Amino acid sequence: MKFTLEQLAVRCEGEIVGSHSISLDGVANLDIADSDKISLYSDKKYAADLRNTRAGAVITTPSLAEDYSGNKLVVANPLLALARILTAYGAENLGRKATAEISDHAVIAFGVKLGKDITIGANAVIGTNAVLGDQVCIGPGAVIGENACIGAFSRIDANVTIYDGCQLGRRCHVSAGTVIGSDGFGFAEIVDGDQSEWVAIPQVAGVIIGDDVSIGSNTSIDRGSLEDTVIADDVIIDNLVQIAHNVSIGRHTAIAGCAGIAGSARIGENCKIGGRASILGHIDICDGVTVYADSYVTKSITSPGIYSAALPAMPIKQWHKLVARIRRG
Amino acid sequence: MKFTLEQLAVRCEGEIVGSHSISLDGVANLDIADSDKISLYSDKKYAADLRNTRAGAVITTPSLAEDYSGNKLVVANPLLALARILTAYGAENLGRKATAEISDHAVIAFGVKLGKDITIGANAVIGTNAVLGDQVCIGPGAVIGENACIGAFSRIDANVTIYDGCQLGRRCHVSAGTVIGSDGFGFAEIVDGDQSEWVAIPQVAGVIIGDDVSIGSNTSIDRGSLEDTVIADDVIIDNLVQIAHNVSIGRHTAIAGCAGIAGSARIGENCKIGGRASILGHIDICDGVTVYADSYVTKSITSPGIYSAALPAMPIKQWHKLVARIRRG
Amino acid sequence: MKFTLEQLAVRCEGEIVGSHSISLDGVANLDIADSDKISLYSDKKYAADLRNTRAGAVITTPSLAEDYSGNKLVVANPLLALARILTAYGAENLGRKATAEISDHAVIAFGVKLGKDITIGANAVIGTNAVLGDQVCIGPGAVIGENACIGAFSRIDANVTIYDGCQLGRRCHVSAGTVIGSDGFGFAEIVDGDQSEWVAIPQVAGVIIGDDVSIGSNTSIDRGSLEDTVIADDVIIDNLVQIAHNVSIGRHTAIAGCAGIAGSARIGENCKIGGRASILGHIDICDGVTVYADSYVTKSITSPGIYSAALPAMPIKQWHKLVARIRRG
Repeated sequence: MKFTLEQLAVRCEGEIVGSHSISLDGVANLDIADSDKISLYSDKKYAADLRNTRAGAVITTPSLAEDYSGNKLVVANPLLALARILTAYGAENLGRKATAEISDHAVIAFGVKLGKDITIGANAVIGTNAVLGDQVCIGPGAVIGENACIGAFSRIDANVTIYDGCQLGRRCHVSAGTVIGSDGFGFAEIVDGDQSEWVAIPQVAGVIIGDDVSIGSNTSIDRGSLEDTVIADDVIIDNLVQIAHNVSIGRHTAIAGCAGIAGSARIGENCKIGGRASILGHIDICDGVTVYADSYVTKSITSPGIYSAALPAMPIKQWHKLVARIRRG
Repeated sequence: MKFTLEQLAVRCEGEIVGSHSISLDGVANLDIADSDKISLYSDKKYAADLRNTRAGAVITTPSLAEDYSGNKLVVANPLLALARILTAYGAENLGRKATAEISDHAVIAFGVKLGKDITIGANAVIGTNAVLGDQVCIGPGAVIGENACIGAFSRIDANVTIYDGCQLGRRCHVSAGTVIGSDGFGFAEIVDGDQSEWVAIPQVAGVIIGDDVSIGSNTSIDRGSLEDTVIADDVIIDNLVQIAHNVSIGRHTAIAGCAGIAGSARIGENCKIGGRASILGHIDICDGVTVYADSYVTKSITSPGIYSAALPAMPIKQWHKLVARIRRG
Repeated sequence: MKFTLEQLAVRCEGEIVGSHSISLDGVANLDIADSDKISLYSDKKYAADLRNTRAGAVITTPSLAEDYSGNKLVVANPLLALARILTAYGAENLGRKATAEISDHAVIAFGVKLGKDITIGANAVIGTNAVLGDQVCIGPGAVIGENACIGAFSRIDANVTIYDGCQLGRRCHVSAGTVIGSDGFGFAEIVDGDQSEWVAIPQVAGVIIGDDVSIGSNTSIDRGSLEDTVIADDVIIDNLVQIAHNVSIGRHTAIAGCAGIAGSARIGENCKIGGRASILGHIDICDGVTVYADSYVTKSITSPGIYSAALPAMPIKQWHKLVARIRRG
């Protein structure tokens, strides 16, 4: 795929200095780029690479533009421009090659439906009747359950586990070690005289994930008990996040690292849940709510806005005095 | 295995409407059940499936019972009834088939002892002299260490790691991505003039897990340093939980998602540890203690009851005022 | 490798009772040790093993020394002594054998550079052009990305994922399920009329980890966006810790379980970050800071010392009263 610098400038609202018509077929770092590639120069520390680069054009900022006399695309936010240009060139990302090859060491069960140009890494396991859309990329050691369905252009990284029947939309990204579709924490407590016993409630529903969802590493998303766990389009979730069973998360909501959403909570659209925030189960958070990091939401929220309850750390003596005063009343 | 509806009714204290003697050999969803299966109808949204079902009998509630004219088992808690009936039919769970097959792509070391009807998924690795009891089910990509021992009917899901020498009892369930037996966080700080250095203390003890223990996904349970880490029978642990070295957890205790138990803490029987609760190391929690979510226990607890210290989030202006007031005293 | 008891005593500042010249070639538990091994006796519960041991010498404490009449090395801290003696005997650890064998079931791509005496477990996957130093030990199911570099004597346990291009120093240890080099949580929010959209900012930098770094299980360390994520020498990190992109952590700092360090935070040398502590992004913590468990640091810290803000849990009635009083003011 080729674009002129003019065409790329339109996508990222940049200003061209130099040739508008130069044809470029991809992105590469300054030190390895050929004349048909565009590169990024957004930090002085790459000045030496810049001096020696053979790139056809360079994305840069107004303040750095004078360091370079070749073709350049000057933008306010060079990373955003890079992101949009990479998107223009397709699913490929720097350093993450979708080779469109299926490793001889992958194990693919009967009945699997594979789209075009699929990449599957060594020792990945694809279960019976799973469906992988076009250009899906499955990392080494990932396990895709029976009847699971991964939409086109999605990338599932190494050692991810997706349980049976879970569905992901198009252009999703799931980082390494994440688990989707494990059983929810649902147990009935059976009291029998003096002794009680936990009986697992079967978790018979699934996980439905929309398009353009990004999920970090070592995150856990449980399957529903009777109702599916649902993650809408364009949701972004960081590392080590807990999403319990039956949770529903609305479009374009962002959830930062180590956050925890308890069972059957419903989070609206366009919310921002801070790092390590906790949301109690069975409550509703309306659209447009921001919960600050380290805060604990215990009741439904019905008005958009910012919510918090995190005490900032202070020197230990000051803290001990404050605790004593609080306790005294 | 076959049961009459009468036999199933006894197990879940239900009331039969229709044939007591119909013979049933398993559980299936309404839409795919044949006449020798029992199905669940616990929500109006499955009414269309109910109308077309060929199931031999249906588990339902008093309020939904009139929707169906066939054989039915009417119970107060249909999920609990389903759980008990599934248990009656053995280790098999909806959608999780124990095929009793060992994949050609599993790697099984010398000296491994296998019980009857074992299932081992593709690319699982079973270490030298490990012991797997009858009907154990090991998921794809799971790694079972040397001399580890997994009791009968236990299910270890995909990409789980169980280190050398760890022991699990019967009927345990470990969800994907969980690690059992990693080294505890034990280091001696060696001061040498101006510079200090960490030296790892060998973690030479193991992890002993009882019967009927359920562990969620991406949870970490460390091995002991000199004394084993011990999880008693019927303990249930959710996702992303940290259990440090030398911890001991008593029978029938439940630990919710993202909780953390620091090294050498001892938790009694019948406790309930809420989501994201933290328990400091080297303290004792007696039997029958409930710690609410997001609370931090810093001292031993010697009386049963409920303990908490989690401030609920509030609108940011209100919170800022409150913090200012607390600080002023 | 053989040492006299005299030579071992020098390494761990112990006092010898018995033969100074006995030659010992390794460490073993009391019950299986031969006369050329040294064993540990640090707890009365192993008294029976002690009585029957054939070990050439025993490490013990002043208070336990009288239980044994054979050769002994009397030390204040027997575990530390054991650690130093194990280190003297090389990378080998009790029960974790570095067999210096590469499994036939490992998948090793073209261009991989292997040092001497490498151990690679079954179903591990080593990417193109990765470099493994001498005596590196890769566990079963671990995935090492393209161009990743693992220094000599490092041990990477089962089901770990190390992404492309990440670098680890010498003598590092990474426990199972940990992910190093996943994409940072970097997204630009593109507003287009009523609807917003997240666009992933390419995370094009890497992770650089020094020598003697220990990382627990199920921890996530993200790669940098433009600047590397950097972990200096002798840092120790526990389980389920989140290290976001561009973070830098100074020499000899310790980070306990479930802690979270947000993006671009800089933590100095010799710090101690408690369990579940949170460090906000884009702040600096100077050298020598201790943050207590469960505390949340929101501003840069410029003076060494102890910082805290964690309220200890209390009986629920007392807590409710306290919350009411705080709210009233």
